[in-house]
Amino acid sequence: MRIELVNTGDELLLGDTINTNAAWLGQQIAALGLVVSRHLVVSDGAVIKEAMAEAASRSDVVLVSGGLGPTNDDLTRDSIAELLGLPMELDERLKAQLEAFFAKRNRAMSSSNLRQAMVPRGALVMDNPFGTAPGLYFPAELSHARGWNTHFFLMPGPPRELKPMMETHVEPRLRALLPDGASRTIRYFKVTGLGESDIVERVEKKLEAVPDLILGYCIRQGDVDVRLSGQPGPVAQGEAIVREHLGEHIVSTDRRLIEQVVVQTLAERGQWLATAESCTGGFLASRITDVSGSSGVFGHGFVTYANAAKQQHLGVPADWIEQHGAVSEPVAQAMAEGALRVSAADHALALTGIAGPSGGSDAKPVGTVFIGLASQGAETVVKRFFYPGTRDRFKLLASQAALDMLRRRLMGLPL
Amino acid sequence: MRIELVNTGDELLLGDTINTNAAWLGQQIAALGLVVSRHLVVSDGAVIKEAMAEAASRSDVVLVSGGLGPTNDDLTRDSIAELLGLPMELDERLKAQLEAFFAKRNRAMSSSNLRQAMVPRGALVMDNPFGTAPGLYFPAELSHARGWNTHFFLMPGPPRELKPMMETHVEPRLRALLPDGASRTIRYFKVTGLGESDIVERVEKKLEAVPDLILGYCIRQGDVDVRLSGQPGPVAQGEAIVREHLGEHIVSTDRRLIEQVVVQTLAERGQWLATAESCTGGFLASRITDVSGSSGVFGHGFVTYANAAKQQHLGVPADWIEQHGAVSEPVAQAMAEGALRVSAADHALALTGIAGPSGGSDAKPVGTVFIGLASQGAETVVKRFFYPGTRDRFKLLASQAALDMLRRRLMGLPL
Repeated sequence: MRIELVNTGDELLLGDTINTNAAWLGQQIAALGLVVSRHLVVSDGAVIKEAMAEAASRSDVVLVSGGLGPTNDDLTRDSIAELLGLPMELDERLKAQLEAFFAKRNRAMSSSNLRQAMVPRGALVMDNPFGTAPGLYFPAELSHARGWNTHFFLMPGPPRELKPMMETHVEPRLRALLPDGASRTIRYFKVTGLGESDIVERVEKKLEAVPDLILGYCIRQGDVDVRLSGQPGPVAQGEAIVREHLGEHIVSTDRRLIEQVVVQTLAERGQWLATAESCTGGFLASRITDVSGSSGVFGHGFVTYANAAKQQHLGVPADWIEQHGAVSEPVAQAMAEGALRVSAADHALALTGIAGPSGGSDAKPVGTVFIGLASQGAETVVKRFFYPGTRDRFKLLASQAALDMLRRRLMGLPL
Repeated sequence: MRIELVNTGDELLLGDTINTNAAWLGQQIAALGLVVSRHLVVSDGAVIKEAMAEAASRSDVVLVSGGLGPTNDDLTRDSIAELLGLPMELDERLKAQLEAFFAKRNRAMSSSNLRQAMVPRGALVMDNPFGTAPGLYFPAELSHARGWNTHFFLMPGPPRELKPMMETHVEPRLRALLPDGASRTIRYFKVTGLGESDIVERVEKKLEAVPDLILGYCIRQGDVDVRLSGQPGPVAQGEAIVREHLGEHIVSTDRRLIEQVVVQTLAERGQWLATAESCTGGFLASRITDVSGSSGVFGHGFVTYANAAKQQHLGVPADWIEQHGAVSEPVAQAMAEGALRVSAADHALALTGIAGPSGGSDAKPVGTVFIGLASQGAETVVKRFFYPGTRDRFKLLASQAALDMLRRRLMGLPL
């Protein structure tokens, strides 16, 4: 099945908006074992008609986003009606929905909004609970008059409207178009602590040997999503392989991030975490507090960027810093144990390292980081890692390694 | 001048990589007063040939990225040679450069890398100091045999290779193609503390009245880049308008972020900053420490998520929290003054608020934040803001407001 993606929006071509929809839609399509074969972005206005016609001439499915708003340059709805020769009709149910939408928000509904209740004859409405632009589905029959056999799905551009519409209305229809779509299933394994090449080496050949299993990777900085899709049988076979060979590196199978897993696990156990950061400068604390509910597990964080702060707030002995350097195993240990003590938490993570670009040496080059984990009733562990590159990447990978040390301790895995 | 953009890369269509190049290139083109009219993404492999031909048939300039690597599915170079009927020739200088690149990194050069030293006859090499794939420029004459009059620019896909090549090699050539390109200039004004609609209201009509001035906005969360381009005269007129009406909201004119401006200003003055964060959970400290050199101005940060932490580390009186609530003006003030005292810094920023999704009340709904700024020898100021929405957005906007309070104090502007 050939799928093309067409976006309309001047803001995309001017670069004012990064096109995150395209990547997200690409992933959703890939999860069905399909691939977007072309992705085209055109400006607002009449050019969308030609773009949809081109895509339809080559494809079984065309996903369109944008241009369903109430303004004069929102022409996607009118363009497809012209393209397929369908008359526009007022949809009374949509009109009532729009009126209710505006009434609920105490806003006046302009006459231009009424355009959003117009539906080309034969198209099916896909409800949009998050905005005023309904989606529209044109089954392939509606394109036969043009000599095509193409399904069109028209969705609004804003991600918070597009994503639920794709999941609720488009994906089930795409599944229904696939011979085995209804039973097609997907599993994600978020893997951390292994590079992409390690993962490939451990499982790729074995997974490729499973008949009818579709394998994909989504590589992020810090972790890799391994994606298995296909019929339930092959996916289950694949899952067994992934669990056997990547086992303790699997952070979640429900796409939860490691910070969510850690916070939720701490919350279940009623345990508290403290942080003491030098080189990551608050980024670890910020990741933890990105998780809703983190206030129930995280009370005290220290950003001890200066040596004096390490001594003053965490009780790191001045002569240890003098003797071993601020970036050292003993200092990471003292920071972790100090944070544990002053916060009375159950666990404390501490990081000290060299984010760069300056401050490195031969013995401790830029990218070096020592991470300490202290826990009540357990021995403090300090590990050394090396993440050269930009400051951003350093902060991300170092905080990821710290979270993984805590995850492993919480799961009873070796550190 | 009509410009199209063609990217090749399976990772873009699968959604494994968000296409940030497209937005960045769109901005660079817009800065020249031009607009990308179409942006097409196709998979790796032979389809790039058809995509380039389509774009060329409609356009004066085609910018291509991706597919210049050493592997079998990197076909951009071969495809354009076939398309334009140009023989491939080994470029000895490129070959020597490639050998030097690998020698410097102690890596073996494979024979497939030699493909990257092959140049279609007549194409001009654009050097790539950050990778092995050189860029290629095909002046329009090379396309005349096909009946086109199209300039092709081929660039590598990785952003850290593409961006410098665009700036160094492509933009000067695009300018040279514009009748007034050589003298065309651009100014950016990073504006904070005003919404897009406020900015539009203050300056848009006045700027649109300046003949031959090209106006653009790049809206981010937290700030807006106002972009003026054109000939030096109109741009100078526009700059006067922007400075008069947006004056004290201008953070920088060289695209520096507010955290860079603040850190650099503190560094120039030899002053120190401390932070005390509740609701932003370390995000403010992390933004500050994203700036290289921040260790010279930032020594102590506190993430006092728990009330006990506010008391213990910052000396916030327990009865103030009891009486006014943790999210209150007195507590923000006590946090800022406490952080200033214990860190002996020159300035301290403190934030206490409700990031949500839970914890709000009628008097203090989710999104409420109090931000305190204490400075040596100045009165502590506390301001109340309201940023409803997601946690991410809340953390971004609250930290932005805090940085702007400090920026205003450093610049001697009213708070």
